[in-house]
Amino acid sequence: VIAIVGGGQLGRMLALAAHDLGVDVRCLTSAADDPAAACAEIIIGAWHDEHALARLAAGASVATIETEHVPAAVLRRLATQVPVRPSAAVLDMLQDRLTQKRFLHELGIPTADFTPLDSAADGERSAPTLPFPWVMKTRRDGFDGRGQRRVADLAAAERALVELGGRDLIAEALLPLSAECSLLAARASDGQMAFWPLTENHHHDGILRWSLAPTPTLAAKFQATAEAWLGRIAAALGHVGVIAMECFVVGERLLVNELAPRVHNSGHWTSEGAETSQFHQHLRAILNLPLGSTAARGCSAMVNLIGEEPARAEMLAVPGAHLHLYGKTPRPGRKLGHVTITANDPAQLRERLDQLADRLHFQLPVPA
Amino acid sequence: VIAIVGGGQLGRMLALAAHDLGVDVRCLTSAADDPAAACAEIIIGAWHDEHALARLAAGASVATIETEHVPAAVLRRLATQVPVRPSAAVLDMLQDRLTQKRFLHELGIPTADFTPLDSAADGERSAPTLPFPWVMKTRRDGFDGRGQRRVADLAAAERALVELGGRDLIAEALLPLSAECSLLAARASDGQMAFWPLTENHHHDGILRWSLAPTPTLAAKFQATAEAWLGRIAAALGHVGVIAMECFVVGERLLVNELAPRVHNSGHWTSEGAETSQFHQHLRAILNLPLGSTAARGCSAMVNLIGEEPARAEMLAVPGAHLHLYGKTPRPGRKLGHVTITANDPAQLRERLDQLADRLHFQLPVPA
Repeated sequence: VIAIVGGGQLGRMLALAAHDLGVDVRCLTSAADDPAAACAEIIIGAWHDEHALARLAAGASVATIETEHVPAAVLRRLATQVPVRPSAAVLDMLQDRLTQKRFLHELGIPTADFTPLDSAADGERSAPTLPFPWVMKTRRDGFDGRGQRRVADLAAAERALVELGGRDLIAEALLPLSAECSLLAARASDGQMAFWPLTENHHHDGILRWSLAPTPTLAAKFQATAEAWLGRIAAALGHVGVIAMECFVVGERLLVNELAPRVHNSGHWTSEGAETSQFHQHLRAILNLPLGSTAARGCSAMVNLIGEEPARAEMLAVPGAHLHLYGKTPRPGRKLGHVTITANDPAQLRERLDQLADRLHFQLPVPA
Repeated sequence: VIAIVGGGQLGRMLALAAHDLGVDVRCLTSAADDPAAACAEIIIGAWHDEHALARLAAGASVATIETEHVPAAVLRRLATQVPVRPSAAVLDMLQDRLTQKRFLHELGIPTADFTPLDSAADGERSAPTLPFPWVMKTRRDGFDGRGQRRVADLAAAERALVELGGRDLIAEALLPLSAECSLLAARASDGQMAFWPLTENHHHDGILRWSLAPTPTLAAKFQATAEAWLGRIAAALGHVGVIAMECFVVGERLLVNELAPRVHNSGHWTSEGAETSQFHQHLRAILNLPLGSTAARGCSAMVNLIGEEPARAEMLAVPGAHLHLYGKTPRPGRKLGHVTITANDPAQLRERLDQLADRLHFQLPVPA
């Protein structure tokens, strides 16, 4: 049995991959209709429920996470019963944007300029050295654009400071992005790493909308650099499992935006688009099994289904469309599923994406 | 909810595919540790348990099977509550080898010569017109070589007749096979069909050991013929869902061995080796969703894991290896899982298969 702290869509897709490997899955989740419940044993309870944690870990060979927001103390408690991958120390470092950014700087890895903000006085002090506009973010618990504000001047920053809780914030320089991309990799317990090709990402309102991989133009410029960075990061963390590094491209420079020590939305294309999916690979890593090939199979795009679920028949009528629904109740802004489109070449992929966009009534920006 | 009569490995793999489509699965199965139980709701009961059947069908949008040995009466009962695909009429025709063979002959589709056998007198009468050796088979319920005997003469046939129950048998001419292959297809409710490339199959002791697809040599000779036959068969049956046609190659002739109106072991390679897996395709067909592309992705082989489960790490160390374990207790002759090996070309596939064979200590005959 593998224990997963969480029962959302990432837990669901990890569970489906675990069944391929003949491994049973138990998830700690908050509700009986959470996405993983349809295909895994579930323990309903809160992260801090010691009794639930004990039941989650009972007889498990390894425990893992589907979100980096699990309190590190929860993983420390689990670790008294079962090996936990990634470790509590990895979450300590990454779940706070400020410690994460300082960690990156210690490794010599560039990010946007930033400053911690805990008061209006901090804002005033920083304004001369960190030019506006800023993105202000809570240090912890943000995702899909939540806990963030873009501000153009000090007055707006002071309002945002109050809205975001008044302390434990970080302000980052808002940069003119040429592109966004991410590198996913897995690290085995013996230190071996396997990197997928860079993925090009398109966000809107802070939520990932769609991804493309492989991306020959970005890869030619940045694959080697990004692999070197993520290799250094994962080794420094002693990470085991999949890890995602989101990056900004600013002109000809690559900057790291943020790290997630888990399977990641921008890696969903790997289910059909790579030799080994991120879900299988994460399980291989945490189960001490050999890592699989991360080579791409053709060209792929991943389109998130957000807020509403289009008719299955419409999506599956598109050649190369592979559907992944999470069994969630539709709600504005909620990730309900995704479609992977596979193709033999970029032109065919573009044509299929256009068909999907037509059927789903959304617009795709022209890929880079 | 989709209802599946049965909870074996085929039910398990259908359930995993159903979760991709956001569809919940309920299986009627005989034990709480059957393969599908790890990833689907289960109803424990016998096929003839009316109460269990009613619970299986409650609220389901469609019911399907994972074995053609379900009594047609069970499907007729289910059909009073829920659409059943394939229908009871399809099982009536195919679950008896004699009616199946006569159906093929009515369609003008060649098989090995055969004769029904219900007594020693039948054997004597047939011997002059059906030259030995024969394969004697029970008309119903045989699988993986069970319920079969090869006999060289009339005396052996008379002994086999007794061993196989004395009646409801069929004797077929045992032919010198050049190869065995199968064609899998899906038929939608509107009659549209999608055919995968022919699969080359290697049996031993009546059990499928490994398969290869695509097979350019066999396909060049037989793909068009086989598609024409299976198209005629599926239309005549009014079948909806995946259907498998196992064939013999005798010299330059193709003969049909048997039909199975369901997902099939020889189609397992489609999970990684085709654009659409047989499991997803079966669900698309029975849910009235558009069929997906059946094009092959590179070259694939599928190797069954029979009787014992080799160490996962050994299998996954082979490049291109994808593991599928069914969560079954090992037992001699039992199918416990399979490995799909994917490759870019036949030479690379051969090399990887050789590595797998080395690690698993089995021998592969040279592929055709």
